[in-house]
Amino acid sequence: MKSLIIYAHPNTKSFNAAIKETLVNELTILGHEVRVRDLYEMDFNPILHADDFTQFFQNQIPEDIKNEQNHIEWADTLFFVYPTWWINMPAMLKGYIDRVFSNGFAFRYTEQGAEGLLKGKKAIVIQTTGTPEHILSASNLISPMEIAMDIGTLAFCGIDTIEHRFFTGVPVISNEERQSMLEELKHLVKNRFPAS
Amino acid sequence: MKSLIIYAHPNTKSFNAAIKETLVNELTILGHEVRVRDLYEMDFNPILHADDFTQFFQNQIPEDIKNEQNHIEWADTLFFVYPTWWINMPAMLKGYIDRVFSNGFAFRYTEQGAEGLLKGKKAIVIQTTGTPEHILSASNLISPMEIAMDIGTLAFCGIDTIEHRFFTGVPVISNEERQSMLEELKHLVKNRFPAS
Repeated sequence: MKSLIIYAHPNTKSFNAAIKETLVNELTILGHEVRVRDLYEMDFNPILHADDFTQFFQNQIPEDIKNEQNHIEWADTLFFVYPTWWINMPAMLKGYIDRVFSNGFAFRYTEQGAEGLLKGKKAIVIQTTGTPEHILSASNLISPMEIAMDIGTLAFCGIDTIEHRFFTGVPVISNEERQSMLEELKHLVKNRFPAS
Repeated sequence: MKSLIIYAHPNTKSFNAAIKETLVNELTILGHEVRVRDLYEMDFNPILHADDFTQFFQNQIPEDIKNEQNHIEWADTLFFVYPTWWINMPAMLKGYIDRVFSNGFAFRYTEQGAEGLLKGKKAIVIQTTGTPEHILSASNLISPMEIAMDIGTLAFCGIDTIEHRFFTGVPVISNEERQSMLEELKHLVKNRFPAS
């Protein structure tokens, strides 16, 4: 099993960092090959420029994008780990998707409409929020995030999102509660990838 | 009337550019003071770093952010003009919101919960899509974008979104249809700001 963790948080001491490390550990224990794309650490350039379109059109993919596409091609399962900023992902991750999931790599248009080119790959999305779940739910703010990511983005590319787990209210809960979230994450991974 | 146009498209010949120019012209004719923030042209830095949080916390706002906050404070109406990329806005605009709509400027937390600090301001969101409307509607992809922007972002800051207009299928329609969209935009602006 080849697992790629795409991770976007600016703080190396954050709960998102703990999620990323827990995933690396658990997946390694389970015998997966694991690669991490730490977008902030890599100082990834998330700005899709007009030049990029020209290059895509000429089938000349910029080197940094080609490198990310190679990682995605390699993986069976993509893990996305990120905080919620404005009922949405951080710009860093948004721009990774804008640039890397390009026309001709992640999807193409045919006479029958759009076709995902990453079929067979699975995604597990782990998203934290600062806002407690009851407030998000009362304003119906969870489902728009699931739809935009799981349907509008990943399914569009043919990727099957097998989990989109929210860990909510992270800054306003206790250390014990955060610890039990990490335990829950370990169980989630073990259940998804049972030892054979 | 003071109108601020926040615009994010990498191509100066795009339909989004035509929307931005139409807005500038119409608002100027109507006697508004108009300012444009062309995020690509400005080469705005959309990456919220850990340093930013530290500076926000110390009430030392980075110079580029402070400048944008001054423009927002100045305006009565904020116009957002952008294309849809992945059922979402471009990373460039997402990062503008991540960095500029900061805690203490756009909102604050009180014992009663979050409080928007930009009350009294209005927003008009003009968003294009490449995908035709019937495909977006069939997959229920319009409303998640409205909820994330109008409720999860702007209303959270106290801003009243008085229009969120989608111009859909832009690359697959005729020049005449695109022209009539710009005419519709002019009417929209005139109706919202009737001459006194």
